[in-house]
Amino acid sequence: MYDMTIRLQTNGKKCLYEQIYEHIRQEIREGKLLAGERLPSTRSLAEFLQVARSTVEYAYDQLLSEGYIESRPYRGYFVCSLEELFQMEENQLRREADFWGEKKKKEEYLYDFSPNEIDMTHFPFGIWKKITKNILTDGNSELFSQGEPQGDYDLRLTISRYLHSSRGVNCTPEQIIVGAGNDYLLMLLEKILGRRIKIAMENPTYKRACQIFESFAYEIVTVDMDENGMKVSMLTEADVNAAYVMPSHQFPTGTVMPIGRRRELLKWADKGESRFLIEDDYDSEFRYKGKPIPSLQSSDEHGKVIYLGTFSKAIAPAIRVSYMVLPKKLLKKYKEQCYFYSCTVSRIDQRILNEFIRDGYFERHLNKMRKHYRSKHDVLLECLKPFEEEFEISGEHAGLHILLTTKKNAPEEYYIQSAAKRRVKVYGLSDSLVAKANSKATILLGFGGLKEDEIVQGVNLLKEAWINCPQ
Amino acid sequence: MYDMTIRLQTNGKKCLYEQIYEHIRQEIREGKLLAGERLPSTRSLAEFLQVARSTVEYAYDQLLSEGYIESRPYRGYFVCSLEELFQMEENQLRREADFWGEKKKKEEYLYDFSPNEIDMTHFPFGIWKKITKNILTDGNSELFSQGEPQGDYDLRLTISRYLHSSRGVNCTPEQIIVGAGNDYLLMLLEKILGRRIKIAMENPTYKRACQIFESFAYEIVTVDMDENGMKVSMLTEADVNAAYVMPSHQFPTGTVMPIGRRRELLKWADKGESRFLIEDDYDSEFRYKGKPIPSLQSSDEHGKVIYLGTFSKAIAPAIRVSYMVLPKKLLKKYKEQCYFYSCTVSRIDQRILNEFIRDGYFERHLNKMRKHYRSKHDVLLECLKPFEEEFEISGEHAGLHILLTTKKNAPEEYYIQSAAKRRVKVYGLSDSLVAKANSKATILLGFGGLKEDEIVQGVNLLKEAWINCPQ
Repeated sequence: MYDMTIRLQTNGKKCLYEQIYEHIRQEIREGKLLAGERLPSTRSLAEFLQVARSTVEYAYDQLLSEGYIESRPYRGYFVCSLEELFQMEENQLRREADFWGEKKKKEEYLYDFSPNEIDMTHFPFGIWKKITKNILTDGNSELFSQGEPQGDYDLRLTISRYLHSSRGVNCTPEQIIVGAGNDYLLMLLEKILGRRIKIAMENPTYKRACQIFESFAYEIVTVDMDENGMKVSMLTEADVNAAYVMPSHQFPTGTVMPIGRRRELLKWADKGESRFLIEDDYDSEFRYKGKPIPSLQSSDEHGKVIYLGTFSKAIAPAIRVSYMVLPKKLLKKYKEQCYFYSCTVSRIDQRILNEFIRDGYFERHLNKMRKHYRSKHDVLLECLKPFEEEFEISGEHAGLHILLTTKKNAPEEYYIQSAAKRRVKVYGLSDSLVAKANSKATILLGFGGLKEDEIVQGVNLLKEAWINCPQ
Repeated sequence: MYDMTIRLQTNGKKCLYEQIYEHIRQEIREGKLLAGERLPSTRSLAEFLQVARSTVEYAYDQLLSEGYIESRPYRGYFVCSLEELFQMEENQLRREADFWGEKKKKEEYLYDFSPNEIDMTHFPFGIWKKITKNILTDGNSELFSQGEPQGDYDLRLTISRYLHSSRGVNCTPEQIIVGAGNDYLLMLLEKILGRRIKIAMENPTYKRACQIFESFAYEIVTVDMDENGMKVSMLTEADVNAAYVMPSHQFPTGTVMPIGRRRELLKWADKGESRFLIEDDYDSEFRYKGKPIPSLQSSDEHGKVIYLGTFSKAIAPAIRVSYMVLPKKLLKKYKEQCYFYSCTVSRIDQRILNEFIRDGYFERHLNKMRKHYRSKHDVLLECLKPFEEEFEISGEHAGLHILLTTKKNAPEEYYIQSAAKRRVKVYGLSDSLVAKANSKATILLGFGGLKEDEIVQGVNLLKEAWINCPQ
């Protein structure tokens, strides 16, 4: 029980104990005080409300005698179980929750090929717990005080070194801003870049980034892609200030932008003082074939690339830690215009993550996950062999999903619905479309969150549903 | 050590092992690989770079023979200590950090009367650690997956009940949005309220809120205060959409808005469809005298108050958890326009906080802190008795600071500088001014972060510095 704020009227119409009694009774009836909840002691409530202790005792006695509360020896006063009243309130909350669609019904599907799920079964909880435990000691009380707006220096140093060695990113810790998720970092970026921004996006692309730019009232121009990625000629025509790209592994197509196209993009950006490229390097950790692909930022010589990355995919979605690497020119703007925004990640979480990376656990975890995902990826590809006649398979060898494009004429909805009838959830490419596209139906099959046998069983059901499609 | 991204040229000019060797040597020279750091095993680097293992072995041998790395039996290859090179890099980083003012020099002061510091010495680390430990078990792996955008329902339920009982706030969990700090929640609010907002602020006020509104390009109108708070007549004249107020304990003046003025404010808001009051209830937990003051929101009958609160003051600044209670009308807008912004607080932190409040630890901690702060407050007031002749004392009996207003003509800077000469840091009211004010110099003395004997010693130095000021 917390303190109880009661507005006591002292105009004499109702005596104080009655007001306290009525207030608490009302709280219990409305389910705001729940069965089993402890009331404040008479002494502490009297002190809090600045009334005599006997006044509170009278009020409690009345509640006791009416059965709203009970007294437990040596423990205090507790709200009695008023099953019906409580149930009523609970139901009302549930109804409201349903109304707002808070609880998603996942149970209706046997297999969910979500491209956003990751595999948490191999997460090193033990190590995470150990690091956390070591950090939460009295000696570390400075961790509970306010940290630096950009994030703690040690973590930024660790991230800069990780990015350099694994992604070829060239930056100092001073260029890094740590934030609670990419969405937040994009909000900060809005404050840095300003408002009247015309931004180019690939089509299809990562839809949420598009929604976020829309919420900034940015003018969004969709730029077509060829097999090498965004067409730079169209970018030039579109007269935009910025382009949002995923050169290492485009979402959702899986396209890898070759060095030639990257150079063209950087050249385009070099031509305008206020032109920038936003590189979202969201899942670069997972490649199963070929050499690692360095970031676009690593080829940037004139400070044109804003690099965004996250630990959501590589560690866990709930670890709300992302980072943005700003070119020095924009860093100056950040320092001038955004220095007062405090960091959104708790220092404890920053410290845990820092030690997790610095002490090599992150590398080990990545290696382990790369193996697990590669194995799932291989199982899925193998299972999809019977689909090759009727579908184009693409986007393989990296990331956590594969694309199937039909060679027939059935619409996307046909594939989603016929899979759903067999209780398999699949996702259409149209979820990622920013502008309409007249192309064959394409389905995304995410494998991150499924076990290997689930992949096999799920794809078997899809085979029943889709192969020999009449259309 | 992480994976090492090396751009290998296969045009034959330089053999692969040489390229790997040169890359690593360069990394060590530039301090990007630090002394003592483990290199990837030859097997794993070879796999990662898709080259023969012997190629990597050649490269490592060369580095070994040149003294850049050393081999430790059964453990692998480690970067040797190259004191000078390392030191150089470190110094460069330090210089950059200094340049950006990243490290604040606190050491030069003996006593810092910051109004923003809180007392962390009584924080129940043990309990926090215990809760954390219990939560971080394999069985809770769902905590590492993405949660609800508004924050987990359980935490919102707990917050709604806490707010109801301690602050009289009327709301359902559905109206609550959990976010990583007030700054972030204000950014969200910008997306909900829209852009062309003219907002009224008290003068002085909480400066950061003002900076944030400025960064939204909101038009800010300062509205004068009398002893009851914001003057509503001026608000009407100013023709604003919103007013930012702290009715329970205005920062920094400490003014408590009486019920009459609150009614006037609410009446003002009722008169316009798009008028709203932003109530920042930032430190309502700490009152040392008189009855608790319910929130403005508790008197709001027509959904006009946006209520903001934080756990930064009551628990710890580093616990990046704040909450916003939206009136139902604005909640609808949030659901339409902001549903895609994911929650900025990690689910683990949400769960820890939920259990901390739900199981009564928060109440106990608050009661304890109220006593400690009350005691510090009383010590400070007692120490300030000799100041009464030359200063007006105000803002006492609540919060974590007290104000001293000079009766003489010396400017604020005089008091700050003469305190600084005695190595005592104090803060001027002008830090909180949004518009200039022609009033006597006022100093804020925060007592949250100081021990009682430090308060005594610090005030003694201030006495030497200030009493019998010649001006």
